[in-house]
Amino acid sequence: MLKINFDDNGLVPVIAQDADSMEVLMLAYANQDAVNKTVATGYAHYYSRSRGKIWKKGEESGNVQEIVRILVDCDEDTLVYQVRQKGKGACHTGYEKCFYRTIDGEVVAKKMFDPGLIYKKNDKKLKSP
Amino acid sequence: MLKINFDDNGLVPVIAQDADSMEVLMLAYANQDAVNKTVATGYAHYYSRSRGKIWKKGEESGNVQEIVRILVDCDEDTLVYQVRQKGKGACHTGYEKCFYRTIDGEVVAKKMFDPGLIYKKNDKKLKSP
Repeated sequence: MLKINFDDNGLVPVIAQDADSMEVLMLAYANQDAVNKTVATGYAHYYSRSRGKIWKKGEESGNVQEIVRILVDCDEDTLVYQVRQKGKGACHTGYEKCFYRTIDGEVVAKKMFDPGLIYKKNDKKLKSP
Repeated sequence: MLKINFDDNGLVPVIAQDADSMEVLMLAYANQDAVNKTVATGYAHYYSRSRGKIWKKGEESGNVQEIVRILVDCDEDTLVYQVRQKGKGACHTGYEKCFYRTIDGEVVAKKMFDPGLIYKKNDKKLKSP
């Protein structure tokens, strides 16, 4: 495995990309442990800065991300997880991807599920990457 | 324009994605000024954390990025620039994209140019996003 240059907080940004549609699904962060768990299990794991712990994407919603390939950039300080998005979508808002709007606010992605039915009511904010 | 939630340093991560191939080209950062310049000119501008200033991608190499669309994520704290990559490639190493290797070190992208012929010799390191 290439040596990854984590930042002062021990993190790197991770871009999750759909391996089939090539859509950018979300951006989150990972530490070495999260990367190791991702490689070992074949499912995307990240580090939640707000919760201060590793999380498996989809552990609550079922919308897990099966790893197809992990890419590393020139400086070894950013990763791309190319994934097969399982379940109904990547975004905690219910859209298929977090990047569902243009900078002008136009919605350009499909709403796949009602987040109120998936996540516990008071826990929604925490589900954001 | 949507309000963007910049971090404590006034920055957001920006994922540059090829609008045609949908390949993720690079990750860099932007402040509000860089976003404004990008919108106003139609060419990708970023903020260099190492140089402490805004830069137009390709200003030296000619490998500019023509903006097709800018996407904003659910939390309004990450952007995607969907671009047409001009010139020979996005990465200062000469590869078509910064994510040219898998985590195991396998090269999975094409080398498009010799960076020694494009960038000034002592300035290479600075050209990384």
